Amino acid sequence: MTRRIYFDNAATTALDKEVLDAMLPYLTTHFGNPSSIYSYGRETRLAVENARKSVAKTLGVHPAEIFFTSGGTESTNTAINAAVRDLGCTRIITSPLEHHATMHCTEALSKRGEVRLEKVAILENGHVDLEDLKNKLSGSAEKTLITLMHANNEIGNMLDVEAVGTLAEQYGAIFHCDTVQTVGHYPLDLKKLKVHFTSAAGHKFHGPKGIGVLYVNENIKIHPFIEGGAQERNMRAGTENIYGIVGFAKALELAMAHYEQERSHIQAIKDHMIKRLESEFEQVRFNGDTRGESLYSVLSVSFPETEKTEMLLFNLDIHNICVSGGSACSSGASVGSHVMQALYPTEHLVPVRFSFSKYNTLEEADLVIDQLKKLL
Amino acid sequence: MTRRIYFDNAATTALDKEVLDAMLPYLTTHFGNPSSIYSYGRETRLAVENARKSVAKTLGVHPAEIFFTSGGTESTNTAINAAVRDLGCTRIITSPLEHHATMHCTEALSKRGEVRLEKVAILENGHVDLEDLKNKLSGSAEKTLITLMHANNEIGNMLDVEAVGTLAEQYGAIFHCDTVQTVGHYPLDLKKLKVHFTSAAGHKFHGPKGIGVLYVNENIKIHPFIEGGAQERNMRAGTENIYGIVGFAKALELAMAHYEQERSHIQAIKDHMIKRLESEFEQVRFNGDTRGESLYSVLSVSFPETEKTEMLLFNLDIHNICVSGGSACSSGASVGSHVMQALYPTEHLVPVRFSFSKYNTLEEADLVIDQLKKLL
Repeated sequence: MTRRIYFDNAATTALDKEVLDAMLPYLTTHFGNPSSIYSYGRETRLAVENARKSVAKTLGVHPAEIFFTSGGTESTNTAINAAVRDLGCTRIITSPLEHHATMHCTEALSKRGEVRLEKVAILENGHVDLEDLKNKLSGSAEKTLITLMHANNEIGNMLDVEAVGTLAEQYGAIFHCDTVQTVGHYPLDLKKLKVHFTSAAGHKFHGPKGIGVLYVNENIKIHPFIEGGAQERNMRAGTENIYGIVGFAKALELAMAHYEQERSHIQAIKDHMIKRLESEFEQVRFNGDTRGESLYSVLSVSFPETEKTEMLLFNLDIHNICVSGGSACSSGASVGSHVMQALYPTEHLVPVRFSFSKYNTLEEADLVIDQLKKLL
Repeated sequence: MTRRIYFDNAATTALDKEVLDAMLPYLTTHFGNPSSIYSYGRETRLAVENARKSVAKTLGVHPAEIFFTSGGTESTNTAINAAVRDLGCTRIITSPLEHHATMHCTEALSKRGEVRLEKVAILENGHVDLEDLKNKLSGSAEKTLITLMHANNEIGNMLDVEAVGTLAEQYGAIFHCDTVQTVGHYPLDLKKLKVHFTSAAGHKFHGPKGIGVLYVNENIKIHPFIEGGAQERNMRAGTENIYGIVGFAKALELAMAHYEQERSHIQAIKDHMIKRLESEFEQVRFNGDTRGESLYSVLSVSFPETEKTEMLLFNLDIHNICVSGGSACSSGASVGSHVMQALYPTEHLVPVRFSFSKYNTLEEADLVIDQLKKLL
């Protein structure tokens, strides 16, 4: 079997060996319950609190604003539900390009009659229409939650978070930003961004699966989404996933320590792919604002629908190349992508998302392009 | 420092080496997203589905009835919220001795005006008064959720699940049983128990933290508690915690493979502790139905409140003995135990919970008793 080329890092990433090493003590000898009163439990409690401090420092916020959850999806569900239940939001403004966590969570609240749901318009390049957002905000005085993602997981488009934060402030809205694709991939100084909530997931930046972070701005007070014990200062019940927490913090620390270097490495791969795709393929279309405000690790392209392109993902898989159609979050390619559908409703193209990590190489990019040429 | 004696296994347990070994491939080479369409993701999907089958088989149910969550607390929150939102329950009958997950989740629903909350009476020995439960059920025709725990985490009392299941059936009630202390510690054949929901947590039986199971009887249809991607057959969104899932299944498999042997080993430790406490300590009180319907791994005793007993947990910790006051789930001993308060409201005794695992020995029991004698 040929060597595997893993170009699906927006779906999930390999756990960094250094991260696993940091986790292992808590998977073996250090297993005490952090809520215990004896010193053996205090050891793990200290590990949890040190992890919280480290994450808070990297994100430019106070440790008391960082809560560990089971992942990005839980973080997003917590933020959105809290905005409605605890902060009195009766309207949610979101976009048609959000992750399923946001989309289905807001739709569920809407179906239960707890909120009114509005979708902001999307520009041709896939960016949120800030004028439309402003009009929607100024058009109603009701308490509003804005929930928009920082980097789109399918097309890589990046939101102007500062601008949205400023609008939110101006109109007294609550702002949740799904930063699952940018935490660990982008320098974030949350205190400066005027966001109330952000979500993050460890496994998107070489940390463990099953662990996430919710940032909650200290000026807002919410109730837990998962009720029970007093963990996470009464904000998220359940015995702490200590290794997950330690792994999340270690992965974030490593990601940001080597950020500049890894970013250029990955950007070079993306640029190389763009260049070769452009020059060697007819009728390739770059989805979203690929060469503009776009995350360096995500590249989405579309090919015309032909017999060959319909089997493309299948054939890439046969050659041990891991890429994605839309996103990985809805199982199977057959479902189609709500992002592609919203952005290009009348087209029948076959989308392919390449997403890169520090472990990828230019050589791999060449191998993938070569294989694509053979297949198409 | 003297050797650590860990007698707090109802709080959390050491991860079994064999379980970690089963998890490690998924923490290193096998990291693909199970929702991906390529074969690399299908490998992890297979691991998840095999884990589900294994858990289902052990619990005597169909794999489609098993959902992986982030832990016992999330499972309980999911069940209780679904019973209210999706199954139309307007009344919850619970007990004053439940775990905080149940207690705070039901209280939150009650505070939001979504349900009426009733507490079933507790007998002197700490068991649920089934007569009172029956009266409550027959006293109102409204759709009711009964949520009662199988084994109490603080005193070890075991519920007559068959009897409660039969009452639930008779009165058309939904029955959630918090089996967090019994899954992996007790042979459970859920199909025979007439339960609709049960909760479990991996870390209570030498599995990993951050992973749990929710059993949902196939005859009831509910919506997800955490909304988002299509994972867990659209029932629990979020990228799967693969190593957690694999670890949960492996831990349960091991626990039940060696159940008889480990149970006798642990029961002998508990019996030995009871015998020595009884014969060598004046004024020791056994909490709950210690020698009756009681989980073999939990032993709760109380000592009269004196200067010496007030410092007891602190002094045991100095001697590297890990035990618990009430439960570990509310951080710190200062909070007091709602279970002790409900069971013995007028007494001022100092409760100590010993909880044992397969890794404990009779020798450790003797060392703990000897230390207690020195301290008291």
